[in-house]
Amino acid sequence: MKRIGLIVAYDGTNYCGWQVQPNGVTIQGELNRCLSQLLGTEIETMGASRTDAGVHAMGNVAVFDTGARMPGEKFSYALNQRLPQDIRIQLSEEVPANFHPRYCKSEKTYEYRILNRKFPIPTERLYSHFYHYPLDVEKMRTATSFLVGEHDFASFCGAGAQVKSTVRVITSLSVERYEDMITIRVTGLGFLYNMVRIIAGTLLEIGNGQYPPDAMREILLSRDREAAGPTAPACGLTLLGIRFF
Amino acid sequence: MKRIGLIVAYDGTNYCGWQVQPNGVTIQGELNRCLSQLLGTEIETMGASRTDAGVHAMGNVAVFDTGARMPGEKFSYALNQRLPQDIRIQLSEEVPANFHPRYCKSEKTYEYRILNRKFPIPTERLYSHFYHYPLDVEKMRTATSFLVGEHDFASFCGAGAQVKSTVRVITSLSVERYEDMITIRVTGLGFLYNMVRIIAGTLLEIGNGQYPPDAMREILLSRDREAAGPTAPACGLTLLGIRFF
Repeated sequence: MKRIGLIVAYDGTNYCGWQVQPNGVTIQGELNRCLSQLLGTEIETMGASRTDAGVHAMGNVAVFDTGARMPGEKFSYALNQRLPQDIRIQLSEEVPANFHPRYCKSEKTYEYRILNRKFPIPTERLYSHFYHYPLDVEKMRTATSFLVGEHDFASFCGAGAQVKSTVRVITSLSVERYEDMITIRVTGLGFLYNMVRIIAGTLLEIGNGQYPPDAMREILLSRDREAAGPTAPACGLTLLGIRFF
Repeated sequence: MKRIGLIVAYDGTNYCGWQVQPNGVTIQGELNRCLSQLLGTEIETMGASRTDAGVHAMGNVAVFDTGARMPGEKFSYALNQRLPQDIRIQLSEEVPANFHPRYCKSEKTYEYRILNRKFPIPTERLYSHFYHYPLDVEKMRTATSFLVGEHDFASFCGAGAQVKSTVRVITSLSVERYEDMITIRVTGLGFLYNMVRIIAGTLLEIGNGQYPPDAMREILLSRDREAAGPTAPACGLTLLGIRFF
């Protein structure tokens, strides 16, 4: 037996998220199906990040175990021939048998894209959140400074999360505008349920002037989900990549 | 009666092209349908560019005539409420009654995007042509120099075109690479059927080393469609905009 690691990119538009579920097509489900077909035996992958319905990825990570002789790097080609066009393996390789993408210490980077202009652009609609009120990127940037570091992010944790602690570490958080596209990029050691989308939703309320940048500090300290902004839509979010230590 | 001009952006993925046809959903068809609903009378738009099935646009132009009192600039909002999400009006305004986007002298700019890397990126698949062999952008650039100016572009004219002359003017043509994305941008005073996609297909054969950059000169002078490369796929092409003189 050996363990194979996969870097998986996908367009989440047409999926009920990463994780296998009884009703609905998922990315993990498609991966398991194609791997099982390829290897002629039931295969179950273990993923690093259970992205939500509609969320995209450039570099989610999954592993599976197999006794097959195929060299690790060949799985990318073999799987891409079977997978639907909106899922593509970027890399496959043999990894240590004790490597588990969910329980190994890692740093994830997410990107949240906001198209900020008068009217939507059809070719951007699936991969960004359209927002037509003016946004002040400087204010959004000031607000992010309160979030970097180790904090209790309870205010930015979606309902239904089952976690012992809501303390997490954000190592970097940037807001950039290029023409009409505002990109929020956040790197951290683990994230709470919906955390990036709630941060994005809160930054929108600061960028549009509804709250001053300083409000972010109070929102963080309140440890109250009600204090933060709404959960921004899934289509704007992409898991860029994961770095393991 | 007044004439209203529209700047129309669309994701061409799910359309049989711009022009109304008996079978199949088209962008012009959707525009006519929504305008007719809005105004309570049959409206037919006239478009500047009859883009093919699968081709996208940031700025195609259409006009229609109406006796309605609605100010020109309000049509963008009213239409965007009715149109499907993959079509969005970017601007509407009253234009001179004799302005016809198809017969007025104009300069069009197209962009052809090639994703050049080992594996496809799912979120780019609808808006670029995936090409995995290495491409030499310098060679592609050298080849473009033969095409700029007034030439007989018969070699770059798709079959089925009904035109008196195949002489056209390309005013600029650039090839840029940013990370894995190669962008061919071409501006000209009118284009032949499939011209940009055949230029792109020929540049691919030069970029991959199949032909030297100088071959572009011979292909142009041969005035023979067989001499040029294949028609590159529609999904990579976007009509960026049109400037009228």
